[in-house]
Amino acid sequence: MDFRSDNVASAAPEIVDAVAEAARGSATPYGGDPWTEGLEPAFSELFETKVKVFPVVTGTAANSVTVATLTPPWGVIYAGRAAHVENDECGAPEFMTGGAKVTGIDERFGKIQPQALEAALDAAGTGEVHWSQPACLSLTQPTEMGQIYTPGELAVLTGIARRHALAVHMDGARFANAVAASGESPAALTWRAGVDALSFGATKNGALAAEAIVLFGDKRAGELAFRHKRAGQLLSKMRFVSAQLAAYIADGLWLRLAEQANSQARRLARGLEAVPGASLAAPIEANELFVTLPRPVIDGLAEAGVLFYPWPETDPATTTIRLVTRHDTDPAEVDRLVETAHELATAAA
Amino acid sequence: MDFRSDNVASAAPEIVDAVAEAARGSATPYGGDPWTEGLEPAFSELFETKVKVFPVVTGTAANSVTVATLTPPWGVIYAGRAAHVENDECGAPEFMTGGAKVTGIDERFGKIQPQALEAALDAAGTGEVHWSQPACLSLTQPTEMGQIYTPGELAVLTGIARRHALAVHMDGARFANAVAASGESPAALTWRAGVDALSFGATKNGALAAEAIVLFGDKRAGELAFRHKRAGQLLSKMRFVSAQLAAYIADGLWLRLAEQANSQARRLARGLEAVPGASLAAPIEANELFVTLPRPVIDGLAEAGVLFYPWPETDPATTTIRLVTRHDTDPAEVDRLVETAHELATAAA
Amino acid sequence: MDFRSDNVASAAPEIVDAVAEAARGSATPYGGDPWTEGLEPAFSELFETKVKVFPVVTGTAANSVTVATLTPPWGVIYAGRAAHVENDECGAPEFMTGGAKVTGIDERFGKIQPQALEAALDAAGTGEVHWSQPACLSLTQPTEMGQIYTPGELAVLTGIARRHALAVHMDGARFANAVAASGESPAALTWRAGVDALSFGATKNGALAAEAIVLFGDKRAGELAFRHKRAGQLLSKMRFVSAQLAAYIADGLWLRLAEQANSQARRLARGLEAVPGASLAAPIEANELFVTLPRPVIDGLAEAGVLFYPWPETDPATTTIRLVTRHDTDPAEVDRLVETAHELATAAA
Amino acid sequence: MDFRSDNVASAAPEIVDAVAEAARGSATPYGGDPWTEGLEPAFSELFETKVKVFPVVTGTAANSVTVATLTPPWGVIYAGRAAHVENDECGAPEFMTGGAKVTGIDERFGKIQPQALEAALDAAGTGEVHWSQPACLSLTQPTEMGQIYTPGELAVLTGIARRHALAVHMDGARFANAVAASGESPAALTWRAGVDALSFGATKNGALAAEAIVLFGDKRAGELAFRHKRAGQLLSKMRFVSAQLAAYIADGLWLRLAEQANSQARRLARGLEAVPGASLAAPIEANELFVTLPRPVIDGLAEAGVLFYPWPETDPATTTIRLVTRHDTDPAEVDRLVETAHELATAAA
Repeated sequence: MDFRSDNVASAAPEIVDAVAEAARGSATPYGGDPWTEGLEPAFSELFETKVKVFPVVTGTAANSVTVATLTPPWGVIYAGRAAHVENDECGAPEFMTGGAKVTGIDERFGKIQPQALEAALDAAGTGEVHWSQPACLSLTQPTEMGQIYTPGELAVLTGIARRHALAVHMDGARFANAVAASGESPAALTWRAGVDALSFGATKNGALAAEAIVLFGDKRAGELAFRHKRAGQLLSKMRFVSAQLAAYIADGLWLRLAEQANSQARRLARGLEAVPGASLAAPIEANELFVTLPRPVIDGLAEAGVLFYPWPETDPATTTIRLVTRHDTDPAEVDRLVETAHELATAAA
Repeated sequence: MDFRSDNVASAAPEIVDAVAEAARGSATPYGGDPWTEGLEPAFSELFETKVKVFPVVTGTAANSVTVATLTPPWGVIYAGRAAHVENDECGAPEFMTGGAKVTGIDERFGKIQPQALEAALDAAGTGEVHWSQPACLSLTQPTEMGQIYTPGELAVLTGIARRHALAVHMDGARFANAVAASGESPAALTWRAGVDALSFGATKNGALAAEAIVLFGDKRAGELAFRHKRAGQLLSKMRFVSAQLAAYIADGLWLRLAEQANSQARRLARGLEAVPGASLAAPIEANELFVTLPRPVIDGLAEAGVLFYPWPETDPATTTIRLVTRHDTDPAEVDRLVETAHELATAAA
Repeated sequence: MDFRSDNVASAAPEIVDAVAEAARGSATPYGGDPWTEGLEPAFSELFETKVKVFPVVTGTAANSVTVATLTPPWGVIYAGRAAHVENDECGAPEFMTGGAKVTGIDERFGKIQPQALEAALDAAGTGEVHWSQPACLSLTQPTEMGQIYTPGELAVLTGIARRHALAVHMDGARFANAVAASGESPAALTWRAGVDALSFGATKNGALAAEAIVLFGDKRAGELAFRHKRAGQLLSKMRFVSAQLAAYIADGLWLRLAEQANSQARRLARGLEAVPGASLAAPIEANELFVTLPRPVIDGLAEAGVLFYPWPETDPATTTIRLVTRHDTDPAEVDRLVETAHELATAAA
Repeated sequence: MDFRSDNVASAAPEIVDAVAEAARGSATPYGGDPWTEGLEPAFSELFETKVKVFPVVTGTAANSVTVATLTPPWGVIYAGRAAHVENDECGAPEFMTGGAKVTGIDERFGKIQPQALEAALDAAGTGEVHWSQPACLSLTQPTEMGQIYTPGELAVLTGIARRHALAVHMDGARFANAVAASGESPAALTWRAGVDALSFGATKNGALAAEAIVLFGDKRAGELAFRHKRAGQLLSKMRFVSAQLAAYIADGLWLRLAEQANSQARRLARGLEAVPGASLAAPIEANELFVTLPRPVIDGLAEAGVLFYPWPETDPATTTIRLVTRHDTDPAEVDRLVETAHELATAAA
């Protein structure tokens, strides 16, 4: 019963098959293959606008190469305090930018608060040589607490960004879950809402190891190609990443997989809400649950072999845990978890 | 009536004379001259221990080259939120380290609070590859609000640092003011209290442009020499910086100059405390005053030609101002400022 | 008839199957899975010594992360003029080191000449702060011209390196071809001959996208883990790279695949040597051929659909071409190429 | 008798006086002072076009900050093999660019050979993501062997640069010597000949420590200001550098000082040419001499207390030495050196 993260998931059979298919025969290296060449048309159709696409193998690379393209070495990247670019990349954004600063902004369930962003920008000393200069806003969709920015919420934040001449990056490690849950189009959640570049994740949602940097507008594509190469992300056999991405977005597979994860999260939430002493620490919008539980229930679940992380991860006293569902989460395991929690809560009462 | 900063000050005649003297005749370049070669013995005597000394021309360079020597690219530098390394170097520490993070810690009048430092370190994920790793503590002495850490206070903070394997840097842009005001020895405020490396400032206190990086223990000296060169701080005619530093610490000049600045700060504080509606926003320990005043008094002082900065600088609504005294501050100007404030306050009442 | 490079090759079925197998079920992310955890024991056995292993997805990453671990920002990396670290990584080694220099050394068929290396080191200004400092020797095995350093040749070069305190990196993008062709053990061609770290390639020889950084001795492993993460090479589903590497070295698969490539190179060489006007520009030791041919033969082969690169690639006047054989090169295609060349040469005579 | 370099020279009294004058009274920090604000008008007049000026304290900083502004991290800087940016900055250009490559081009007496530059650019793989991209040409005027590029020679090289979209940097550490010796205007040797940015040296020719980065055209000035700050080159008391530069270019002082150095070089050359067994290894155009002498003469000069460097510095077997004259070289010392050489040569014959 593994509810630690969606990055523990299996790969979807369609994607494994696509890789196996691409493995046959020879192909032009470094992205000169048909799989890679097909990505830009396919993603352009998906996003209803002409895009540039750079496949990479990690979210770290997707985020860091992209913000480095949007931010000069003396720039500031504004991100939520819990965002990966601020908190989970071991300083890769600072490294790849050549020494930019990442500034954490107050968030509510992971959503950057507009007034907090405005306040940070007003105090930033724009144009003053003594301060790193505002350059980039990075939004996580869904947020690290599983919340989905609406197009309207995005527009407010990207509007502030525009007024302060910031480029806008979206970390979409779980972008599929946001699209599937919200019913919004990929375009509505990105460029139509003011996003310049997207880390489009597939790994957590059924790929082996595949993310796409999607650029809306191509003015930065030339530069990004060199950063991509220098980050060690230009695979000679690029087709093995591209084939994953192609299969992932073909025929709506990505949204079907995401909906499987999302629906199990809803099932799990419904079940846990009925557990005595349990309460949801954040609304369930995608595939992550944050649940506050009595300590004996948490300990009992762990003893029963349920895998999960405390939240926040570094707080030993917390009684909130994070549970993540996946495209391949077994409904029977969800039910078993709920049942176990029930028994533990009853016993503890 | 210029109370903006001590970096607007004149140079002390003794230092100008030393430079003029060094300007005669030829000398071995790149620090092979007698002035530079005399620095290590002189500073070793001053600090009562063998030290390594690297002259530089800015505090930016002193701080950034030093923390880069103490911090790997994947490291975290902990500093007060208002510290120069966090706030005023346009990301030079991030640049010179190759992408380390600077994390601001809560402070009280600029002093890092031990429990806030402990909390940050406990949550830092030491040893986990996803997080930048705790590497360096940077303390500012006196603080950005003019407070002086006692040896005991330093020992508490450097003790925490040691337990978490952090190196300790001290930004001593106004180190002379701290030594002169506290009566503590240079040793007591640095290595005896657990400091590994000091940015020893002279520019604000009577030099033309001279700071010394002082290393206690020489294990990092080899590396620092290369960082110093690559930062463009190895002057071919190094003697012109070294002669300033030599004159500065000879015969106690540095402490006499600092005491002049400190005594004018006390004079100014005494005067302003008697102004109706005025209050000190922080204790006066060295040469910086933070004074809260009625808005009409602030506006009137500015109209009367008094130069100063609001505090915090980026807050347009603040009614606190910062006043800095210098080695060459004229007591008559201090008195005139106080008198003007009095008149304005009386008129406004 | 694709003889451009071995990076156009298919993936070996055994490796595709291993990936498909790893795709089932869930696993601990970031290398906490059984496939990754099995790599160090398996590679330690293969190399007859305890090693540390870091899987990556490109040769660019393997080489750049490794030399960055062996070289400080003010260091010099010595490599052959045609070596990838000097010539094909778009400056990734300079980037990942934080600004080290890569200095090209004269080579013969890609082998660094000991006296040229000695001369460069003697002129390097070791210990002088004005010059970047000798830090690393990078050898390519087999070389970019398909030659194999013998253990004795390696010992001469690594001996020079040791005397000048250089660390030694080996770029083994085609390491399997060297081992298979020479009959030497992996140990004999690496640590026993003085190599500190190896880029162990699998991608060109039947993997999808998998290289391993192999460290002999673990003193740099801690640092390398952080560089690996910051380069975006720590995959959440690391098992998909690790499963490739595990299958690759299991049961000698890697050497069988390499021998297939090598044997086709010998077949091709035998055939081409008999073509009128043809001559080999370098001995055939592994799976790369450099053949000088009459211009009409070169043009005719291209027209007949044979894919290959001129050598050097940037010289439009060259009449030497590079032909690379692969684990999946079809002997019938080799024979067809030879036959076509024969006909063209006869027609041109 | 010190003929090692012009960086051993005294400072000119006019410049020392200007610094002493600037030392009185207070001034706005960080370049808001009258000395700094006067630099752009004064340099614009000197160069007969509107320029931007950034004062720095070392040639390392002037060169490295400037080429970093002209070159992206994935760029190549072409420079002569003996140029400072390639050879004497301990990798500072690589550091400040974020990992660009510096490629040495064949030179004749330090002048880059146009056909060698063309060949390097033709082989550079422009537009190919695997290679660092041509970005900048750096010319040294006078060259490291004391030769002066004519405007026509510059135009040929900058014309090649323009056709390959390279920016052009000039390292003018001894720019005064070139202007004084050639009789060409500063404009004719820089922007009129296609130069985009100049490291304008003053330190070697009578300043204490002052160089100016001069930008022709201001499109890169915004970026350069941040690089300048981050390199630790924005002095709080900037006036002390600016006052040197202002005095240096006022009333032709810089050219008078340079002519003093140049005339002593000519005097020395005339004298040494008459020494038996002596020959000039390069024409004397500015203030550097390269003289081949019998070994006993070289050894005898050294024993007699003449200070100089062998050339090339790292070649222990060379019988060529470099002699540099300065603004303050005493003609009597020149004559004494010549006389001593004569005696030694006669004794050795």
